[in-house]
Formats: sequence, structure tokens, C-alpha cells
Amino acid sequence: MDLDQSIMQKAEVLIEALPYIQRFNRKIIVVKYGGSAMVDEELKKHVIQDVVLLKLVGFKPIIVHGGGKEISKWVGKVGMEPQFINGLRVTDEPTMEIAEMVLNRVNKSLVQLVNELGVKAVGISGKDGMMLQCKKRYADGEDIGYVGDITGVDPQIIYDLLEKDFLPIICPVGFDEEFKTYNINADDAACAIATAMKAEKLAFLTDVEGVYRDFEDKESLISEMTIDEALNFVSSGTLGGGMLPKLQNCIDAMKQGVSRVHIMDGRIPHCLLLEIFTNKGIGTAIINSGDERYYHAE
Amino acid sequence: MDLDQSIMQKAEVLIEALPYIQRFNRKIIVVKYGGSAMVDEELKKHVIQDVVLLKLVGFKPIIVHGGGKEISKWVGKVGMEPQFINGLRVTDEPTMEIAEMVLNRVNKSLVQLVNELGVKAVGISGKDGMMLQCKKRYADGEDIGYVGDITGVDPQIIYDLLEKDFLPIICPVGFDEEFKTYNINADDAACAIATAMKAEKLAFLTDVEGVYRDFEDKESLISEMTIDEALNFVSSGTLGGGMLPKLQNCIDAMKQGVSRVHIMDGRIPHCLLLEIFTNKGIGTAIINSGDERYYHAE
Amino acid sequence: MDLDQSIMQKAEVLIEALPYIQRFNRKIIVVKYGGSAMVDEELKKHVIQDVVLLKLVGFKPIIVHGGGKEISKWVGKVGMEPQFINGLRVTDEPTMEIAEMVLNRVNKSLVQLVNELGVKAVGISGKDGMMLQCKKRYADGEDIGYVGDITGVDPQIIYDLLEKDFLPIICPVGFDEEFKTYNINADDAACAIATAMKAEKLAFLTDVEGVYRDFEDKESLISEMTIDEALNFVSSGTLGGGMLPKLQNCIDAMKQGVSRVHIMDGRIPHCLLLEIFTNKGIGTAIINSGDERYYHAE
Amino acid sequence: MDLDQSIMQKAEVLIEALPYIQRFNRKIIVVKYGGSAMVDEELKKHVIQDVVLLKLVGFKPIIVHGGGKEISKWVGKVGMEPQFINGLRVTDEPTMEIAEMVLNRVNKSLVQLVNELGVKAVGISGKDGMMLQCKKRYADGEDIGYVGDITGVDPQIIYDLLEKDFLPIICPVGFDEEFKTYNINADDAACAIATAMKAEKLAFLTDVEGVYRDFEDKESLISEMTIDEALNFVSSGTLGGGMLPKLQNCIDAMKQGVSRVHIMDGRIPHCLLLEIFTNKGIGTAIINSGDERYYHAE
Amino acid sequence: MDLDQSIMQKAEVLIEALPYIQRFNRKIIVVKYGGSAMVDEELKKHVIQDVVLLKLVGFKPIIVHGGGKEISKWVGKVGMEPQFINGLRVTDEPTMEIAEMVLNRVNKSLVQLVNELGVKAVGISGKDGMMLQCKKRYADGEDIGYVGDITGVDPQIIYDLLEKDFLPIICPVGFDEEFKTYNINADDAACAIATAMKAEKLAFLTDVEGVYRDFEDKESLISEMTIDEALNFVSSGTLGGGMLPKLQNCIDAMKQGVSRVHIMDGRIPHCLLLEIFTNKGIGTAIINSGDERYYHAE
Amino acid sequence: MDLDQSIMQKAEVLIEALPYIQRFNRKIIVVKYGGSAMVDEELKKHVIQDVVLLKLVGFKPIIVHGGGKEISKWVGKVGMEPQFINGLRVTDEPTMEIAEMVLNRVNKSLVQLVNELGVKAVGISGKDGMMLQCKKRYADGEDIGYVGDITGVDPQIIYDLLEKDFLPIICPVGFDEEFKTYNINADDAACAIATAMKAEKLAFLTDVEGVYRDFEDKESLISEMTIDEALNFVSSGTLGGGMLPKLQNCIDAMKQGVSRVHIMDGRIPHCLLLEIFTNKGIGTAIINSGDERYYHAE
Repeated sequence: MDLDQSIMQKAEVLIEALPYIQRFNRKIIVVKYGGSAMVDEELKKHVIQDVVLLKLVGFKPIIVHGGGKEISKWVGKVGMEPQFINGLRVTDEPTMEIAEMVLNRVNKSLVQLVNELGVKAVGISGKDGMMLQCKKRYADGEDIGYVGDITGVDPQIIYDLLEKDFLPIICPVGFDEEFKTYNINADDAACAIATAMKAEKLAFLTDVEGVYRDFEDKESLISEMTIDEALNFVSSGTLGGGMLPKLQNCIDAMKQGVSRVHIMDGRIPHCLLLEIFTNKGIGTAIINSGDERYYHAE
Repeated sequence: MDLDQSIMQKAEVLIEALPYIQRFNRKIIVVKYGGSAMVDEELKKHVIQDVVLLKLVGFKPIIVHGGGKEISKWVGKVGMEPQFINGLRVTDEPTMEIAEMVLNRVNKSLVQLVNELGVKAVGISGKDGMMLQCKKRYADGEDIGYVGDITGVDPQIIYDLLEKDFLPIICPVGFDEEFKTYNINADDAACAIATAMKAEKLAFLTDVEGVYRDFEDKESLISEMTIDEALNFVSSGTLGGGMLPKLQNCIDAMKQGVSRVHIMDGRIPHCLLLEIFTNKGIGTAIINSGDERYYHAE
Repeated sequence: MDLDQSIMQKAEVLIEALPYIQRFNRKIIVVKYGGSAMVDEELKKHVIQDVVLLKLVGFKPIIVHGGGKEISKWVGKVGMEPQFINGLRVTDEPTMEIAEMVLNRVNKSLVQLVNELGVKAVGISGKDGMMLQCKKRYADGEDIGYVGDITGVDPQIIYDLLEKDFLPIICPVGFDEEFKTYNINADDAACAIATAMKAEKLAFLTDVEGVYRDFEDKESLISEMTIDEALNFVSSGTLGGGMLPKLQNCIDAMKQGVSRVHIMDGRIPHCLLLEIFTNKGIGTAIINSGDERYYHAE
Repeated sequence: MDLDQSIMQKAEVLIEALPYIQRFNRKIIVVKYGGSAMVDEELKKHVIQDVVLLKLVGFKPIIVHGGGKEISKWVGKVGMEPQFINGLRVTDEPTMEIAEMVLNRVNKSLVQLVNELGVKAVGISGKDGMMLQCKKRYADGEDIGYVGDITGVDPQIIYDLLEKDFLPIICPVGFDEEFKTYNINADDAACAIATAMKAEKLAFLTDVEGVYRDFEDKESLISEMTIDEALNFVSSGTLGGGMLPKLQNCIDAMKQGVSRVHIMDGRIPHCLLLEIFTNKGIGTAIINSGDERYYHAE
Repeated sequence: MDLDQSIMQKAEVLIEALPYIQRFNRKIIVVKYGGSAMVDEELKKHVIQDVVLLKLVGFKPIIVHGGGKEISKWVGKVGMEPQFINGLRVTDEPTMEIAEMVLNRVNKSLVQLVNELGVKAVGISGKDGMMLQCKKRYADGEDIGYVGDITGVDPQIIYDLLEKDFLPIICPVGFDEEFKTYNINADDAACAIATAMKAEKLAFLTDVEGVYRDFEDKESLISEMTIDEALNFVSSGTLGGGMLPKLQNCIDAMKQGVSRVHIMDGRIPHCLLLEIFTNKGIGTAIINSGDERYYHAE
Repeated sequence: MDLDQSIMQKAEVLIEALPYIQRFNRKIIVVKYGGSAMVDEELKKHVIQDVVLLKLVGFKPIIVHGGGKEISKWVGKVGMEPQFINGLRVTDEPTMEIAEMVLNRVNKSLVQLVNELGVKAVGISGKDGMMLQCKKRYADGEDIGYVGDITGVDPQIIYDLLEKDFLPIICPVGFDEEFKTYNINADDAACAIATAMKAEKLAFLTDVEGVYRDFEDKESLISEMTIDEALNFVSSGTLGGGMLPKLQNCIDAMKQGVSRVHIMDGRIPHCLLLEIFTNKGIGTAIINSGDERYYHAE
């Protein structure tokens, strides 16, 4: 009986996953998918593999994705100039048209990748089943076109797809009271959907390692903070860039029933799996006061 | 009791609809939506109203749409030249990319129009739920890129959406064994889906009044033909243009269980309603031998 | 394209019905059927057509009917003399026996008419499924026999028939604690059933045009009043005849959850359809304060 | 421990019933109820108790009843003369009207008796749910009015009522292709319904002890015969009166799937219970060749 | 018509059972089975027949059994000496092992007896489906080994078996937080299960006739007492032996939703049936204040 | 980004499992559990972990176990002498009694181990739900007592437990037509159950590495054979010991619908996981002609 040692290690890894598989059985996990992990083909494959595995072992993952870079590319292709105010894309009607085209195509290409692994996906936008209702967002009072703030989520279509065992993939396009089309920030959409469905986990795949206490100091990565700590951090004014609204969003989501938020580095292969199936967390977790960062098998 | 006469006539019209509402209760009606009715805003509104009404009175309509003109427009916008061989669009990878973007956006705009009338629609492509599998189609042996022939239909996602009371709107994008993306002729897709679901009716909204015995002679419109007559007609070689494959498709669909096919003029406002709710048919009906052209209330 | 104009108008009428079909989808509509509309064969046909159409387009109509004239006819046939005190039929045992026979036969003839239009009806009395429990009603303290006041409604059998897609037709015969048989006023039965099922609409087909502010002045027809106005009207003492208890009944029903009551003229052909599918109301509507009389499409 | 002996005997009786309760669990038992057992109040009570008990211990009893004597009484009351040809009531329109009234009233009074014992009954006629379709029956070629031969049974409404745990009670009124009303022989109706539902048992409560080999000789009661014996008996020509068609009916029912038919004496109190719960059969049983007359506990 | 009189009496007994069958339809009845009725083969057969009959007429019986004598026998067989402190078996590991073996075998033999009568039983212990959680019970502070006090009941497996129409038979073995095995008093288990399921009845088959006001005076059998009387009795200190904890248990069960408790003499054949199907109660009933001892048919 | 390499390898192992998880989703896997793996506490833990993991990732495992050594131990404890004829235990009544006790206790201890890992198990024998019917097996014509040959399997209880999400654990005790208790060979029981449920896999945990071409030559382990090869092997007469009937059983099971049989070495930790989740098979697989030994991800 001299079985190759590596084989035995494989068994050990699978067995290690047991308590986590149990813990998240039938739980909803919303994955905000964006950044480099959407561009690099290898990383993309890893993320899709991870999500498919989560589905197969009994979780209920939902992908919410953006597509900013791809939109800019196509805006350029037709000879227009992408414009931003306060980091928000100025979205006139032609731009919105392109954005919707691009986001839906990205959406279907993700559907394809999931299908390819043998799990049936269905790609929808916030228009389908009237899922994402919104109103115009202003940038410092300025009208920047069809940029939407979510005002309501009707998650019925998502529940229906989950019930029928599909993996839902969602692109953040919504509509207002007059049924005009709006581009929605994917982080916002992920938060709103996670909140509406009281998700167990909301995971952001980003291009940073997590939240830094001092962004200049790479040693200051915060591996966990409670909601209260996050709130203090937000109000301290030391946070900059895109992290501020993301964090604010996360805090809101958790206050309304999301159990745990993870901001993780999408550039690490299989970061989702590692986060969920190992004791060693990745990136920054925002947790409820009283919870422990690392789950222990019961 | 001098009620306005027109009011009474309204009641009569509604009562006249009764036997048709009964006849098609819970029946599947696939509508191939295309041509002018997709371009003219007023006609578009009428078609959507018709389909929504069909849904509300108990039918199960499914929309399958194309978007050829819109694709050509966008191909032009990015500085490419649309190319056709034998009426088939040469679809290299960049063209396929644009086609998929455009078709999905058209799809979502139809979703929006239906939503606006208070019925929840869900827009999907043939990739969602792995619905439309296909293989490369050659034009007289020539490789014209990502143009697909349907090899399999998995209608599960459509059944699921119908069960959950959504109105499914489908754009004809499929995938092959290697999960590559293909553009599919919308007529083909409508036929294949109607066949897979054993639809009660398959209605084509076209830009002609129907099938002419002699295309030059506008008086020779055929208002009905049996499958056998249609077969003879097809093999006679007198049919030209896009009508030949459409007719061939229809015959195949009926042989495999679709009950009746209608080729009607989408330029007539509410042509769908008129076809279904009045004794006076519109365009050309292909019927099974032994059936009567006009349904009578039982 | 010179389609007959009248055909196009038909389409328009159907499209006009769309918002109403949506509004009342799966809603329960209790129709108290009585008066001339039960005697005139032509009117009878119209009422049944209307109810069948309501059923087919997705509503859940329930018919509650009386049969006073027919009862009197048969009481006469067997050589008895119909007697009334305060408008209530003196109902000794032989009279009750005849009343029950007659009401059930009327019931089955309505079932037949509905069946004939292709919708399956089931006729029941208040004894079936122990639906209508009652106690003896006294006329000014005087015992007038088997005339019942409803003390309880068990709507289970109605829900079951609706679930199984039957159209329930109900005749107002009930039973008391000792399981004796009672004749119940059909208006009372309709109100009690509508209340027990929280119906969306309760429509009375009567032989008057509606409620008059001054019964002598045919110009004073009230086309709508709020519950409060109706209450004032009832307590003002100016109302006479059968309208007083009917109105009182309606007010009670609305206070307990019925959304809207209509008192309409059953002598107008298709009055039900006209009331529900057109903007122009018929007769008198009692509405909740704050509601608008005419629904607008949303 | 000197418990009263009679108490112990009660236990024994209940225990004896055990194998029979098991054998007929969820089985459909059609009871044709008629004759003296419908007239004598005491017997009526016993029959209803028996049927209710069958229901409560898990069987699915269905009552089909007639009402000939009561019809004749009311025909007389209105001054008409009952007429019969070949034992079939001549049923002109006024007679049919009375017959329908009377049968439905009898129906509801049986409903009441069952309700009174705490089991919910629902009374229907063959019109409800379009259950009993028929055509005119001629008496030796002579038109005797609205006397119907059953041409089709749609048992859906019965299945629905059983599913909802009601006890169905059926009066034999049907309709023809023109939706005219017909009186149907109750024996015929019971046979047709038992056949359509593949009943386990079809039990006739009659006013004779069973089938006699020689009607004059009361000693010649046949306690059991196979289908073949019954067929011989029928063709022998020695059978007279109403027994001949009844027997022919029973044979047909068994050929089409009814498991066993019993012709029993409704004048014996609790004859139904005794037949089903004791080893000692009552009346005449028609059995399939190869079956044993008396069931044994397994 | 000279039917044997005894036959008619059988019918009467069955009819007498009618109101009781109605009253307990689909009600849960927990039977604590123990004492002589488990030893005497004839009595055992009677108890099983009774429970099977209860099942067949629509109740939901659950058997909870002990097996003390059998355990002692096997403890002896392997050469060990059964030990008791305060009536509790000292249960070291080897004893627990034997106890579990014996109880499960007794369990399966009861399953067999039920199966034999044609009703499918499933035997489970408190480990199955993690049903009975417990902690160590001490005898006057002394550790007596694996004797458990129930700390939690998860009745899901019992509900599941009932839903699937099995008759559950339960032996009182549980587990603690460390998943160690414990022996549980069968009376305790029956009470805890009846409480968790809000049973309609909890019946103890014992070796005494019931509760005596004065144990020495066999005339002083209490045939019924309210909870309050039972409480007084318990606190009076006059109760001795095993009756004290049993009574205390019963009181607790009733306070938490069990409707009625019966302590009856298992040595009387068919005592269960007699208790439930006759007006003459057996043994001692504990009832809620305000209830009547003997049920009357409604 | 210098994540510990071993972490990344963990992700790889999980991802490798993906195609296998997909392939066996909702498939039934019967595990015959026996030999050393039931005695060694460490191995036992591994087997249970494996089965629990299979359950959690979506398979439907069923454990069938024996307990021969434990039975012999207890037979000895009570002073009896275990006897075997042709490898079959002579099972007189006292032995059967002990065997049943022991097997059920082993059964419940396995239930406990599964429960402990957070998955609810239910332990049943072949008596529960009348699952395993059998008749007496003779050893070369000699009566060896209560040793049973399976004559029928009623898998309903297993399907019910699976539906309710329990993990079924089965001990091989059955009953004959007279409801006598029989000991059944666990291999036989596993085969019969796998056959009755058309299991995807039937896995035997044994104390040998697999099937040897020549038992003396440890190099001659057969890693795969088709049914035909197995048949030849069996009829060649070179097989000895317990392997012959096991192989015959396996062949029969596969002929009746089991897809694949594995005979594997239960002494290898996590052998089940390794067999199912890696490309490198363990032990001997019996496959259908035309199948490939190692599954490939699709």
C-alpha cells in the first residue's frame, strides 16, 4: 500500500472543505465581479470555476458584473470620447446605448463560460422581470445623463432562476419611472441585490488587496473590521478613491441583513475558493460585532 | 336607456372575441417579430400591445426577434462594411461581436416595452440555459464565419419562464460544441423553438402581405394552403427571395407538431390581434389538410 | 392595404380593454344576478356571456342568484298562495320545499348556459360544503318561517372550485344549527360571500338604473358615492323600497374588505362588460373615500 | 378486572373490521341509493351513517341517487298524470322540469344529512362540470321525451371533490349535445360513474334481497355469481322486471374495470356496513371468475 | 329478513365509533407502551392491533416503548449484575451497550408485528435524525452513568415518517453534546415527544389500573382529574412509587400543549380501543379544567 | 502577492473535483461498508467523512453495513460458540436474536458518527418499511437457521428518507413470509438495494486491494474489467474465497441497471474520495463494455 503521497493530500484538502460546505449549504452568495479578474483570461477562468464549484457543492451564487473598460473601448470605437465627472461616466443617450450593448454582451460571454463548465447560467439585466428600478443620479448637482441610483429591487426573477437551478448573472442596467434606460454602478447593484435577498455573503473582487489603514503603507492592510470600525473609518475622512463609496455601500448592506462582506483581491487566482474554503482569509472582511473572523467547523 | 351606440358596439367586439379566447387558452404562440414592425415606432407599439393582450387573456406568447438592419447600422458605425453571400451576412469575429451586442440591446428594449404595459418580460438569448445549440452554416460550401445552423433546442428555460408567468423574448444567438458564439437566422430560431415546444401557432410578421401565387401579381395572394400545397409550391421552383426558406421552415415545423403557421403583414396595425380574434384572416395561413381556414366558435 | 375600417376598430376595442384586464387579473368578482336579467332570455344570454368572458380573461367571477318570481309561480302551481310580510316571503315548510326545488333548478339552468359557452360551471347551494349557516329571521318580531339570516360563511368549497378552474354558481339556501333548511335573501348571500372572500368587486344586476338622490326625479341618478356619503344617505331616511337594505348591505361589505360595489341596471345588455371594460361607468358605484370613480390605465 | 363483557365484545368487533379497513383504504365505492332506503327515515339515517363511516375510515364513497317516487308525487301535485312506457317515465318538458327540481332537492337533503354527521358533502347533478353527457333514449322506437342514455362521463369534478375531501352526492340529470336537460336512470348513472372511475365496488341498495334463481322461490337467492354466470343468466331469459337491465349494466361495468358489484337489500339496516365489514355477505355479489366471494384478511 | 341478531349488533358497534373517528381524525396520539402489555404475547398482539386500527381509521399514532426487563435479562446473560439507585439503572458503558442493543431489537420486533398487520412501520431511536438530545442525569447528585435527561427534541424525522404514511416506533436512546449514547426513561421520552408534537392524546399503558387516591384502597381509583387537581395531588406527598414522576411528567406535557393524558391498565385487552371508542373511560384521565371527561358526539 | 504555495494547491484540488461533482450530482451511490474499515477507529472516521462529503456535494450516498466480527464477539460473551458451514453462520434463534441486537447497535453508532459531522442520518433495518423480504437459504441443502436469501426489495422507505434529506444507513436484517427474522449477507443486501434503486455506483469496502488475476501474485491486481471479462473470470473457477459470490453479485447488479461497481481496499484512508474525485482509480472496477475506466471531465 504505497499510494503516492500527493493523492492522500488531495483527500485531506477535500475533507478540510467539509465544514465550510456544510456551513454555506443553500446560502446565497453575491459576487461582484470586476476589475482585472474580468480582463485577464486566466483569472476570468478561475473566477468562473470558483463560482461553478460553489454552485455544485450546494451554495447559491449570483454574479453581478460591470464592464467599464469595455464600454470605454467601444465608445472610442465609434469615434466618441468617454467623459467622467467625479468618477461617474457622463452618459448621454448614445453612450447609454453603447453601454447597454456592451454590458449585455459581457453578460452573455460570462453565461457561456459557466455553461461550458456544465452548469446552466441565465444572464439578465435589471430590466428583466423589472428587477432594478432607479432614478437619475446627479454629480454634484450636475445632470450627467443616464446614470442611475437604485430606488427599488424586485428580486422575484432571481429567486425563480435559483429555484429552477440556474446560475443568475446580472448586468447593472436599470430603468426609471418612465421606463428610460440607466447605467448603474455595479457595486451599487451588487449591494442592492445582496440586501434584497438577505445574502449570506457579498464578495467584491477588486484590484486592491483590501482596505488599508494607510493606503500608502502596504503593510497596513486591515484583515477584518466590525461594522462600527468601518463606520468610524468612513467618517474619519482618510479613505480615498473608489473605496469610500464601496465601504459605505457595504455598511448599508450589512445593516440591512447581509451577514458578511469581503473585499478581496481578484488578481489572486481562486481567491473566492480560498476565502470560503480555508481558514486563512484573504483581503478585508467586514463583520458584525461579536462575530469571529474565521469560521470554525462546529 | 339611450346608451351611446358606440358603447354597445364595444361590448359586441369583446363578446366576439370569446370563442377565440377559449380556443387558445394556455396555448403557446410563437411570434417571429421582424421587418418594418420593428422599425416603425407606432407599429412596434401595436405589436407589443397585441402580444401583451394575448398574454393577459391566457395565451402563452413567446417573441423571437431579429435585428438585421440595426446590426448593419452598427457595423457601419465602427467603420466596417457589411458583407453578404447568398443573403447570409458574412460574420467574422468582430461582426459577431457587434451582432451579439446589438441583438441583446434590441432584446432588452423589447423587454422594456412589455414591462411598460405591466406584464413582466425576461429577455434571453440562445446561450441562456444553453437553449440554442448550433454548428457552422456554409454558404454554397464557403465559410462565412459565425453563422449557425440550429442542431438542438433545450426549451427548459422557456418553460420555466412561462411557468413563473414571465413573457419570454428571445434573440437568436447560439453556441456550438466549442461554445463559440453564432448568429442564427431569426426565422430559423422561431421555427426551431415553435417545434421544440409544439406551439399552437407560429406567426411571422413580415413586410409582404403573404405568399403570392405569382409575386408580380398582387391579386394572387394565397390566403390559405395545406402543407401538401405548400410542398408542391416549394418544389415548383416559382418561389423566390427569402420566402422559399421561410416556407420550407414552416412546412418542417408543421410536420413536427406546430398546428398552424401564419405569414402576415407586420405593417398592418394590430395584425396579430386581427388574425387571432376575427373571422377574417390576414396574410397566408398554412394548415393541415382537413383543417378549415377560419375557426368557428364551437 | 385598404383593410376594412371596422376591422381596425375591433382591434382598438380589444386594446382598450388591456388595462382593465390587467387590473382585475385573478381578482374575485361576485355578481348578484337577479331581476329582469334573469327573466328575459336575451338579457340572460348577455349576462352569461359577460361572466364567461370575465372568467376567460383571467378574473374569478362567482354568480349568486335568486329566483323569487319563479318560486311564486310554482307556489301558485301547486295551489298555494304566496304571502309576504314586510317584503319577506312567509316561508312555511311546504313553501320552503318548493323554494329549494325551484332555486336549485334555476341554479342548474345557469350552469348549463355557462357550460354551453365552453366554461365548466358547478352549481351549489349554501348547504354544499356547509357554506351558508344561518338562523331564523323575524319580520318585526313575527315568525315568518324558514327565512334565514346568515350567521357564518365557510367559503372553502368556493375556493376549491375556483382552484379547480370551475365557475361557481350559488343559490341562497342555507341551514341552521339544527340543519333545517332556510331561504336566504340573494342580496344578503352575495354580500356575505363577497365579504368572506374579500372580493374586488360586488356587482348587483337590478331593475333600476342605480341609486337616485330623489327616486321621483330620474335626473338625480347618483353615479358615485363614497362609503360616508352612502352612510349619510341611508340614515337620512329618504331611501325607500328594497334599496335601503341593499345599500346597508353594501356598506357593510365594503367596511369588511370588499373594494367596490356597483349597483347597475341589468336591463342594459352587457352592462357588466361595459362597467368593467370601459371608462364610462354604469349605474351607481360605492367607493372608498380617496378612490377615483373611473380607473385609469397605469 | 371485571370489565363488563359487552365492552370487550365491542373491541372485538372493531378489531374484526381491521382487515376490511385495510383492504379498501382509499378505494372508490359507488353506492346507488334508492328504493325503500330512501323513503323510510330510519333506514335513510342508517345508510347515511354507513357512508359517513366508510368515508371516515379512509374509503372514498360516492352516492348516486334517484327519486322516482318523489317525482311522481310532485307531478301529481301540479295536476299532471305520471305516464310510463316500458317502465320508462314519459318525460315531456314540464315533467322534466319537475323531475329536475325534485331530484336536486332530494340531493341537497342528502347533503344535509351527511353534513349533520360532520362530514362535508357536495351535491351535484350531471350538468355540473359537464359530467354526464347523453342522448335521447327511445322506448321501442317511441319518443318518450327527455329520457337520456349516457354517452360520455367526465369524472373530473368528482375527482376534484374527492381530492378536496368532500363526499360527492350525485343526482342523475344530464344534457345532450344541444345542452337540453335529460332525466337519466339512476342505475345507469351509478354504473357509468363507477366505470369511469374504475371503482372498487359498486353497491346497489334495492328493495329485493338480491337475485333469485327463481323469483317465485325465495329460497333460490343467489349469493354469488361470476360474470360468466351472470351473462348466462341474463341470456337465459328467465330474469324479469327491473333486474334484467340492472344485471346487464353490472356486467358491463365489471367488464370495464369495476372490481365487484353488490345487489343488496336496502331494507336491512346498515346493510352496507355489514356487507363490507363482516364475512357474511348480504344479497348477491357479482365477482370476477377466480375471485373468492368472501375476502379474507391477509 | 331474519338476519342473525349478533350481526346487527356489529353494525351498531361500528356506528357507535363514528363520532370518535371523526373527533380524532389526523390527530397525533402518542402511546407509551410498556409493562405487562409488552411481555404477555396475547396482550402485545392486542395493543398492536389497536394501534394499527387507530392508524387505519385516520389517526396518527406513535409508539414509544421501553424494555427494562429485557435489558436486565441480557445484562444477566453476559454475567453482569443489574444495579439500581433510586429506581434508576446504573448504566456504565457495558450496560449502555447492552441496553441499546436490546432496545433496538425490541423496537424492530414491534415494527415486525405492525408490518404483519399490513401497516408499514419504521423503528427509530432518538439518535436517528438527531431526535432526542440529552444530558447526564444524576441520582441524588451521584453519577450513575449514561442515564439521560432530555434537553431537546427535534421531531422532524417523526413528521417526515408520518407524512410518508409510516407508523413510527421509537425507542428511548439519546445522545449528549459530545454524541455519547444515553438511556432515557421511556415515560420521559413519550412526554417529551408528545409535547414537541402537541399531541392530542398521550396514553400510558401501565401495570396499574390508574391513579388511586389511596393506593391501599382499590376502590379509590380516580377516573378523572383536572391539571389543578393533579398538581395538588403531586404536592400532597401521598403519591409513591413510579407514579409520582409519571404524574409530574403528564402535568408538564399538558401545560405545554398536550390535550389529554390517560394512564390506563395495559393488562386489559384492547384498553386503547376501549378508551378511545367507547363512552366508558378506563383508568385515570388528566384533563384541562373545563373539559368534560367523556366526549360526546357532536 | 506572495501567498503561501500550499494554499494555492488547495484551490487546485478543489477545482479538480469539479467535473466529478457534476457527474455524480444527485446520483445514488451505495457503499457496502465492512471489514477493517469498520474496526479501526481512524479508518471508520475517514469512511464516514467521505460519505458525508459525498452527501454534502450533492450525491445521494446510502450505507449498507455488516457486523460479523461484532456478532461473533457477543455470541461468545453469552457463552455460545459461533458456528459456520460453508462460510455461512449457523443462525439458530438465540444467535439470530444476538445478531439482530448487534447489527442494530452498530447501525446506530454509524448514525451517530454521521450526525456528529452535521448531516442527519437515519438507521434502519430491512424490517423497516418492509424493505427486505427473504426466504431461508440452505447451505448445501442443510438448514442453517435464520440465514436469508433476498426475494424482494421495497425501496420506498429509502427514497422517502433521501427525499427528506436524511442519509440512510441500513443493516441487513430481513423477514420472510411468516414475518420471521433473518440475517442477510451484507454484500447481498448492498447488491439488492443498489439494483432496486438503479444506483450509479456500488462500492465495496473490503480488506483486499481488489481482484487479483492470481491471488498469490500481488502484482496481478486487475484494475478494471468489463462485465464479460468478469463473467469469464467467474466461470473459470480460479476465483476462491469470498470473492466468487461477491463478483457474481456484482455482475448481477450491473446486468440489472447498476452503472459501475468498485471493489476497493477499505484500509486505504479516504479510499472512497480518492476513487470518486481523482483520475487514479483504486482497486478493481467492473464496467460496462464500451465504457472507459477513468471518467474524463466533459
